[in-house]
Amino acid sequence: MEAARAAEEAGRHIIHMEVGQPGTAAPEAARRALAAAMEAGPLGYTVALGLPELRARIARLYGEWYGVDLDPARVVVTPGSSGAFILAFTALFDTGDRVGLGDPGYPSYRQILSALGFTPVGIQTSADNRFQPVPADLPEGLAGLMLASPGNPSGTMLGKAGMAALVEATQARGISLISDEIYHGLHYGARGVSALELTDEVYVINSFSKYFSMTGWRVGWMVVPEDHIRIVERIAQNMFICPPHASQVAALAALDCTPELEANRAVYAKNRALMLEGLPKAGFSKIAPPDGAFYVYADVSDLTGDSRAFAAEILEKAGVAVTPGLDFDPLRGHGTLRFSYARATADIEEGLARLAAFMAARG
Amino acid sequence: MEAARAAEEAGRHIIHMEVGQPGTAAPEAARRALAAAMEAGPLGYTVALGLPELRARIARLYGEWYGVDLDPARVVVTPGSSGAFILAFTALFDTGDRVGLGDPGYPSYRQILSALGFTPVGIQTSADNRFQPVPADLPEGLAGLMLASPGNPSGTMLGKAGMAALVEATQARGISLISDEIYHGLHYGARGVSALELTDEVYVINSFSKYFSMTGWRVGWMVVPEDHIRIVERIAQNMFICPPHASQVAALAALDCTPELEANRAVYAKNRALMLEGLPKAGFSKIAPPDGAFYVYADVSDLTGDSRAFAAEILEKAGVAVTPGLDFDPLRGHGTLRFSYARATADIEEGLARLAAFMAARG
Repeated sequence: MEAARAAEEAGRHIIHMEVGQPGTAAPEAARRALAAAMEAGPLGYTVALGLPELRARIARLYGEWYGVDLDPARVVVTPGSSGAFILAFTALFDTGDRVGLGDPGYPSYRQILSALGFTPVGIQTSADNRFQPVPADLPEGLAGLMLASPGNPSGTMLGKAGMAALVEATQARGISLISDEIYHGLHYGARGVSALELTDEVYVINSFSKYFSMTGWRVGWMVVPEDHIRIVERIAQNMFICPPHASQVAALAALDCTPELEANRAVYAKNRALMLEGLPKAGFSKIAPPDGAFYVYADVSDLTGDSRAFAAEILEKAGVAVTPGLDFDPLRGHGTLRFSYARATADIEEGLARLAAFMAARG
Repeated sequence: MEAARAAEEAGRHIIHMEVGQPGTAAPEAARRALAAAMEAGPLGYTVALGLPELRARIARLYGEWYGVDLDPARVVVTPGSSGAFILAFTALFDTGDRVGLGDPGYPSYRQILSALGFTPVGIQTSADNRFQPVPADLPEGLAGLMLASPGNPSGTMLGKAGMAALVEATQARGISLISDEIYHGLHYGARGVSALELTDEVYVINSFSKYFSMTGWRVGWMVVPEDHIRIVERIAQNMFICPPHASQVAALAALDCTPELEANRAVYAKNRALMLEGLPKAGFSKIAPPDGAFYVYADVSDLTGDSRAFAAEILEKAGVAVTPGLDFDPLRGHGTLRFSYARATADIEEGLARLAAFMAARG
């Protein structure tokens, strides 16, 4: 990202396939709701767990999306999923506890765990298992397991059977399960399976950032088991006081903006189709099944042994910014790249053309 | 607060002298700036340290308020001062480190430190020292010291000499100093002294919540030594990604809303004068010097040995919500109360009349 910014400052036109966020704004009705609320009165602190009407509306979403009947009392509104990770880790683990993470995965899991005094344990997942962990992968001595479906960078999802197997294995071994579902809503075949469809004994984390197109608003949520509500509330009260009030107002309205959000998803679907056609044509043919989110994760180990140098070369010669896999997988990421298709379709078309020309010239 | 809410739900009219936030909204120009920004484009992630123009404008504030020339690179925009505490503690301390806190003080310092694996060490301050620590109070073996001036609940401030003595003592003993200055701007005599007037080797934490009247927006800032910028940036990137973008836009505009903010302060000044006349008349005469913020901290140990029961009695019989001192001082707080004058002047007048009648009836 820094390199891409520097290239742009030097006057070059860069196609951004490195971004991890929508290019679209918060839904129009969300912005209108906030504009009205700002004139109606002060937006002071809310209670620590979030606006009651927002918690109730989120609970209702679980009925709409998954057919799950969820008690709003179990919904905790958080300052982004980032805040939810901090709350979950702090509520569940003691200093030194080992927490399993599938590799490749979102790098901040590891960093947040370490910063809080816990021990992240990378779990090498396999292409055969869609880059998602399976029970046989779990090492001994875990206090917790973090899942992400759809995954970042892979975009792959756990099906109901895969999720059920992990729920069962972790419960049998007393491992606390955390399911990161922040890309739910962004699927292109079957919808994502929520861990809440299988058990109540799980922390489920979601966000308004991706499907609801509200990254910079820093508002997400977490569903916790009933007997964890009080401890999470106490930690949230002390650590955050409350999630941003303005963002909560906008988020509440965003939950009823389905047509606009589905139009955004249609753009991603079109972009994804272009990627699945264009990337192999350009020479990036070994890709993970891109079930959801807005990423394609490609094995480029036959093209390079140094994904950072390769990403730099692509930026310099093709004018396309991509993310080297080392950010997501410290062991195998030297041979992988993540391509994002979150931007406008015209950008995706131009990016694919540039990648094809670059690869042809590279020979 | 829960008891006050229950009483209101039961139909009673309660005067809120327990609140820790302004009753006023974010400044009008701040709200207008956000309304315009929402229509101008997506409010995606900002860089982790915050919008560059906001960091530059905050740096300029140090010239305006204190005559301090501050490099904007040292300013870190945070998700409220809450986020700043998490960042500061995580950047400065190792598991188990002992961190000194003046008692009485803000209870979340203690809770956040404990949640992060550090050891809070209460320091009993004295009325003679305006409830602020002095070098002789510091116990052995501290890794850090947290100051708050003006203090919450006391409202008392450290003068330049007192601050200098603590800077010198902590530097001589290798203790990391954190100065919480979130009530700066809300003074009624001499302005608050910033630790940055005395040293660059300090973490200074401030917020848009109090003087700038933006509690629910969750945006604050921290000034760190130059050689700490990089580590704080890394932690902030992983833990928070960025502070809320919308709140940053509003905060930038709020920095140029001096007339509106000074009008708010004039209301607090009037309320404070009413409190300083009315509380002693009612029978609350042993109060800490209320230099700043919007609190009066009263010693009521001659009236009660149980501040929680006394606060409950005041709520029930007088219809005035106040905060028992036990929230702020686990040892001596059974004999103290905090009165807030953050609400409208008419409420303060009514509250004081109720308190006077209650105390007269109590005999």
